[in-house]
Parts: sequence; C-alpha cells; structure tokens
Amino acid sequence: MAKNLTTRKEDYSRWYNELVIKADLAENSGVRGCMVIKPYGFAIWEKMQAGLDKMFKATGHQNAYFPLFIPKSYLSKEASHVEGFAKECAVVTHYRLKSTEDGSGIVVDEEAKLEEELIIRPTSETIIWDTYRRWIQSYRDLPLLLNQWANVVRWEMRTRLFLRTAEFLWQEGHTAHATEQEAVEEAVSIMNLYADFAENHMAVPVIKGTKTESERFAGAVETYCIEALMQDGKALQSGTSHFLGQNFAKAFDVKFATKEGNQEYVWATSWGVSTRLMGALIMTHSDDNGLVLPPKLAPIQVVIVPIYKGLDQLNAITEKVNPIVEALEARGISVKYDDRDTHKPGFKFNEYELKGVPIRLAIGQRDLENGTLEVARRDTLEKTSVPMEVVIDKVETLLEEIQKTIFKKAKAHQQSHITEVNSYEEFKVVLEEKGGFLAAHWDGTATTEEKIKNETKATIRCIPIDVKNEAGKCMVTGKPSPYRVLFAKAY
Amino acid sequence: MAKNLTTRKEDYSRWYNELVIKADLAENSGVRGCMVIKPYGFAIWEKMQAGLDKMFKATGHQNAYFPLFIPKSYLSKEASHVEGFAKECAVVTHYRLKSTEDGSGIVVDEEAKLEEELIIRPTSETIIWDTYRRWIQSYRDLPLLLNQWANVVRWEMRTRLFLRTAEFLWQEGHTAHATEQEAVEEAVSIMNLYADFAENHMAVPVIKGTKTESERFAGAVETYCIEALMQDGKALQSGTSHFLGQNFAKAFDVKFATKEGNQEYVWATSWGVSTRLMGALIMTHSDDNGLVLPPKLAPIQVVIVPIYKGLDQLNAITEKVNPIVEALEARGISVKYDDRDTHKPGFKFNEYELKGVPIRLAIGQRDLENGTLEVARRDTLEKTSVPMEVVIDKVETLLEEIQKTIFKKAKAHQQSHITEVNSYEEFKVVLEEKGGFLAAHWDGTATTEEKIKNETKATIRCIPIDVKNEAGKCMVTGKPSPYRVLFAKAY
Repeated sequence: MAKNLTTRKEDYSRWYNELVIKADLAENSGVRGCMVIKPYGFAIWEKMQAGLDKMFKATGHQNAYFPLFIPKSYLSKEASHVEGFAKECAVVTHYRLKSTEDGSGIVVDEEAKLEEELIIRPTSETIIWDTYRRWIQSYRDLPLLLNQWANVVRWEMRTRLFLRTAEFLWQEGHTAHATEQEAVEEAVSIMNLYADFAENHMAVPVIKGTKTESERFAGAVETYCIEALMQDGKALQSGTSHFLGQNFAKAFDVKFATKEGNQEYVWATSWGVSTRLMGALIMTHSDDNGLVLPPKLAPIQVVIVPIYKGLDQLNAITEKVNPIVEALEARGISVKYDDRDTHKPGFKFNEYELKGVPIRLAIGQRDLENGTLEVARRDTLEKTSVPMEVVIDKVETLLEEIQKTIFKKAKAHQQSHITEVNSYEEFKVVLEEKGGFLAAHWDGTATTEEKIKNETKATIRCIPIDVKNEAGKCMVTGKPSPYRVLFAKAY
Repeated sequence: MAKNLTTRKEDYSRWYNELVIKADLAENSGVRGCMVIKPYGFAIWEKMQAGLDKMFKATGHQNAYFPLFIPKSYLSKEASHVEGFAKECAVVTHYRLKSTEDGSGIVVDEEAKLEEELIIRPTSETIIWDTYRRWIQSYRDLPLLLNQWANVVRWEMRTRLFLRTAEFLWQEGHTAHATEQEAVEEAVSIMNLYADFAENHMAVPVIKGTKTESERFAGAVETYCIEALMQDGKALQSGTSHFLGQNFAKAFDVKFATKEGNQEYVWATSWGVSTRLMGALIMTHSDDNGLVLPPKLAPIQVVIVPIYKGLDQLNAITEKVNPIVEALEARGISVKYDDRDTHKPGFKFNEYELKGVPIRLAIGQRDLENGTLEVARRDTLEKTSVPMEVVIDKVETLLEEIQKTIFKKAKAHQQSHITEVNSYEEFKVVLEEKGGFLAAHWDGTATTEEKIKNETKATIRCIPIDVKNEAGKCMVTGKPSPYRVLFAKAY
C-alpha cells in the first residue's frame, strides 16, 4: 500500500484530512456534516469508551438513557442555555411521510405536523433536569451521579471529520448535589479524571484550567476544561466539566427537602467528552507515515507479517508464529497474523504504518534459520532483530515503553510551546512564528478578549488550575492583571 | 418497601406497567412515546449489549457508526422499504431556532429550512447501502460484516415501555456478500445466534422460524425470527434477521467485480434486536412479587442484608460479611452489602425481591452465634440456613441452578402452550381460553391470514424452522396446506 500522504510541513490541515480517510478511520457521508465512523476508527473509539466508562463507574457513576428529542419549550427554559444553542438546532416538525397524489414521489405529510417542535438534543441538560424533578425529593435522593453515552446534533456550518461534525458521539454526565461545595468538587474531580484519561490512556498531555466567562458553557457558572496542543501549535479543547450552580434546578423547579426539613434548589454539574478526542489522538502523535497509536488504545497492538516464497516457507513460518500469537493473546495483547497471499510484505508494512499499529513483527527464511524475528516499533520506526525465545517479553515491555515514549515526546512539545509574552507586539509575533500557548497578562474583560480574538484569532484557552499569582499589566490595555492566562489559536 | 403490585391474574398488562416503574427500570418522559431508561434498567441492557457484542465479534463482525439522518430521497429508493416506514417517520425540516421579534419566545427560523428533509433513521439500510457503494468494488471487499449500536425512531401512536416506544435502542447488523447462499447462511446463523442469546443468557425459550410474506421486513426477501411466549399466552417477536436479496444493492447500485471479472449486484442481510428484549425478559420470568432476573443478566447477583440492633451488632456482622463480599467478587460475582441504617431489613427484602436480585443473604445475631447465613433464592423464594464456610460455593452453584431453573420453567410453559388445532372453531376457543401458540393448517394466502387476524387478532408468528411436512387442509378455506404454522396473539 503506497501511502502518498501529504506531509505535515506541506499542509498540516490536508495531512490530517487525508490521514483520517486513508487510515480507514472515518469519512463524510451523503448527509451534510455527518460522518461515517469506519470499523477501524470505531474500534479505537470503543477502547476510549471502555476506558472512560470504567473510570466513571469506579467513581460511583451509573449509566442511563434519556430521549433524543427535546421539546422546544424545555430548551427555552434556561435563558443563556437556549441562547447558546438556538442557532444550531436540528428541528423535527412532522412525524409522517406520504406518497404524492400522482404517485411520483414521497413528501412530508402536512397533516402530521407536531403541535410542538422537537429539537434533536444538542446536549441534554433540559430533558434530564425535567426528569430529575420527578426523581429528587429529599436529601436522601442525592447525590445523583448519572452519565449517558449518546449521539448529539449541533448544526455546524463548517465541519471536519471528528473535530467538528453536525452529529457526534459523546458521553454526558449530569449530576445533582445537595450543596454547592459538593457540586464544585464533582466538576473538578471529573476534570481530573479527563486529564488522567487523556494523559495515561491517550498519551496526550493536557493543561487543566477554567474558562473565561465568554468561553463558558451556555448555562454554566464555571467551566473546567482540559486543553491539548497539536503539532501545528494549535490548541484543542478536549473535555469540559461544568459547575451549573442552581441554574437548571431553578429553570425546572427541582428542590429537595434538607435534613432540617427546608426546601432548597439542587446544585448541578454536567461534563462531556466526544469523538473529538479522536482528533486530538490522531493529531498529537501521528507523523508523515501515518497514524501513531498509543498501545492502550490500539485495536491491533502487534501485527505479524510473514516474508516467504511459496507455500512451504509460509507453512514453516506459520508453525513458528502460531505459538507466538497464542502467548501474546494469553497476556491480553491483541495481535494479528497477516498471512494474506494477495499482498506483498512491503504493501503490508506500509498499511500497518499508516494504521499506527504500535509493533510489527516480521519473520522470513533467514529468521527461521537464525531463530529470530524482526521487531519494528511504529513510533520511532526502529527495527531490531530479537531471538524468538524472548520475543513475548520484548513485545510486552516495548508496548509499555511506546506508551511512555509518545507521551514524553508530546509533553516535551507542549512544554516547549508555552511561551511567556509581555507585550501585544511580542504576542502577535510569537503567535504567528511559533504558535502554541502564550502566557500573557489580560485585564479580565470580555471586551479585551474579543479584541484580541478579532485581531489575532487567538482565544483564551484557560486560566490554568495551577496559575501563579503574578501582578502585571494587561498586554493590550495596560490595566492591572493578577496572573497570566493561556492564549492560543484553537481547533 | 411495600410492593403494592397488581397481580398478574388481576391484570397482566397493568402488572407489567407497574413492575417496570416500581423496579426502577424505565419511565415515560415528557416527550410523547419516548422513555427514560433508568440506571437499574440500563444496567441490565448493558449486560445484554456486552453479551451480544461479544457473540457478534466472535463471529467476525465489527462495529461502525452511520449517521442518524437519512435524506428523504435515500429512503425512497427501495419502494417496499419506504412504503413500510413512511407512516412513522420523524422529519427534520429546519436547522435553526430564533427569538421572536418581540422577545417573547423562541421559534423555528423559517429562513433555515432544509432543501431536502432529513428522516431520523427508523432503520439504516438506505444510508448504509449508500455508503457500501463506495466501499465495495471487488470480491476482495466481501463479505462486509458490520454492526452498529444505535438509537432509532419509529413514530408509534400507541406506546408501551420497552415493548413499543417512539425512540428505542438497538443493534442493527448490515452485511454484504458475494453470493446468495452466503447471505442466506449469514441470516440463518444470526437467527441461531439470537436464539442462543435468548435461551442461554436471558433464559427465554424461543421458537425459530420464518415470517409469512405479509409479516416480512419492508424490503426483505425472507425474514427469520425468534418468537418468545409470555406468561399471558401472548407471543413477543424478539429478534429478526433478514435476507434482503439484491434489493438494496440494486436500489443503491452496489456492484462488485467477481473473480472472473464480471460485475454483479451484492447480496445483503440485516438483523436486529432492541430494548424490546427487556420486555421479553421482564414478562417471561417475573411474578407477583416483582422481577425475576436470570443471574447472567442481573446487575446485582447477590445482596447481603444485615439484621441487627445497634452499632455493635452491625460491626460484628460487617466483620463477617466483608470477607464474603471479597470472596464472591474474586469469583466474578457481583454483590452488594446493603448496610443502610435508614431502612429496615423487611423493607430491603421487599426492595430486592421487587428488583429481582437472584440471591439474598441475610445475617443476624443468631447466625453469628451459629456460624450460619440465611440464603434466599428469588425464583422459588426458598430459604435455607447455610454454614458460613460453604456459603461461597453454595452461592456459585445456586446462581447456575437459578439460571437453569427459570429457563426450564419458561420452557415448560412454552411447551404446554403449543396446541394443535384442527378447525377454525377450535382455534377460536383455544385462542381465547388458553392462548399460546396454535399450530394450524393455513392455505398460504395473505387473504386468509388477514381474515384470521381481523376476526381473532391472532397473527402467524412464524413457520417454524423444524416444521414437519404434514398434508392437511386450511382451517378456514379447506384448501390444501403442506404443514402447520404457528398462530398467536402478539405484543
């Protein structure tokens, strides 16, 4: 398989688009803005789901399922929420089709018009808090810690596979608490959980922080986030966790009886990560040869390619390979033996490089004679010859090493792309020439934030959780600033 | 917890509705016909998903994801398909909301009208075969064995939790094959897989068969099905697997190059089971005390309830219980120790009976003195006192026994409710007085089938796979019939 991949240097954006298609991850469908997630891409997403789901359950969350449809009146109940989502809502207005009278086609049956339009959920706070009103009466019903895996629709005008699609898959957690403190702690602990998952499963380093008011979720009091940095120096928001205060409890009249017998509004959080994480995963690690996958999320962790002439050689190789496959699987390692006779080894090497399989084992006639295998790692492209009797241990160790190595590499890139800048001029130069996160002083106003965005396309990605107090002056207005915030251009 | 459950004898239908609500499985949402699946109900569905998903993957299928939306023109391409689904389609016509000019509310923005309406998928053959056209060029691309877990919408006028809802969750398999024989074999093997799952995981005995033409899936050449029998003598279609011939390949122009270099249309199957299985599970095993769950699908397999006065007794009990919990979990058994001090043991006993937890262990002061526990099984409500040192083995054996026992009980019910009838009069009497499956001769025409349906509400559930050839005469028309088919009233 010839890769013919545009290089990152040539055109990073095109490289990404081509890679998603050529590595069989996803493609555009016949429906504007909606993608088809192909089996190989979906297998990676399933591994992400499994990892996250385990972490949610380990922290006391349960899954449930709420309707796809949200009555228009529900969406309208929380003012800032509907303002944030109204412009991108897919609206169901009818519930039946019929044949045209002349039999020439199928049309919407105007007699089957809904009394109230239904919105395809862009997020589920409203339908869920309408339900929570029935479920929560007393402090004994709290906390309520639920999550759902679902599809949502936000009618985006400019879409890109995984990064921004009209329909996407995600999980959305919705929790209810008796106290403000407990809700804030939940929102923070989920931000930490997301960071843990990003760094330790995806090998994607992230910066944890809070959003400015203008970047907050529509309806939130505080939005916590994790921000990743792509190889082109642009940031990618990878997960958000919102402290919603009592906004939705008030909009949907959800009160509970306290231990003392008072009626109080419930405190809320919501949080989500989506198939967008696939974009972060792809762009963080991959290179001009194709995908580089962290072993923990690779659908195939090891591929074995036989190099042979004729059936006798193949049989001799297969005899050696079979016990290796079994031994690897016994250690929980997913392995594929690709003995297709329709493709040459070189084609297969290219294919698995493109698909980011972490380790490739090749075995030919000379290896049989020497009792060795060739071990190639995808991240560094290094090859070594390894005696057959140690290959199982070698593979196991190498998988762990690759997981660590690609994280370290990405972390080094992130660290070297956080630049302190002290004037707006310097800001603009660094932004254009180097990119990455720019740590700068800002006066805390939405006006200045917007001016910077309009003039440079950079937005405030977050106020880092571990921000240091450092009195300074806003790079634009000169007004006082208590600490530096992180700017970047973003996906 | 007082159960206050209507008994099955009083009103079977009401018993079911109450049970679904009181056992915390699901409830109606504020959106007409759409349910909320509650955490306990969803946990059962997750176990079903996991079991089925493993079986699909073990037979070479992969998961993928296709868009929620289907352009109206796609749905219209296969004539009988659109005819079957047109009357229950939720239609998206707009993609934006806006504030009214006077600011009094939110309305659909008429300027954001879609050029072509989008249908919320009622099933995905059309969008998937539109995609397969791009994926299939050669015999080397076949077979294509894909499945997706998704939500679908069919606008039903009369809905019931799990059994018939406007939105439901399901899996839909869509496979593409080079030959007719291979596609038929796939459809049959999935019917067998579904039967295996129903009987060996859900403990629900089923009859495998084919549908008559009028009961076939819209667009199928043959529909294979599994039919279960509920305690009230009504049948419940639990899964279908369709051989689609070349219908969708022709509608979407999907051809492949054969080994010989000819261009041929691809052969197809599709198959699905849905959250309807939850209804089958609930109605097959449960009794007037609540749910009875098969151990393989029970979210909590064992509950342990302490019976105590004062904290000292509780602590002494907990000390004995902790190692039991650990030992059970070490064997992969899910166990809950309910030491809440807010509820009395009697309340807890009722609650777990209602929720169908297969085994309850109770331990009180006298047990501590005697070194015993009380073991209660949910299916038979039998209680025995068991020495503490053998309780782990006892529980493990008992879980297996319960799984077998409830299957046997359901199987006996099914077997005793298959009645051969030889006249239409007898048919009507047995249908009303006994219910169940009626094995009768039928002339093979849709006219007679419809007459019987209109007059008795019974439909032909299936022509059993293992049907015996037995020349006879149609009970209605007296015309010749080669074998008996199975009639029943159905959900």
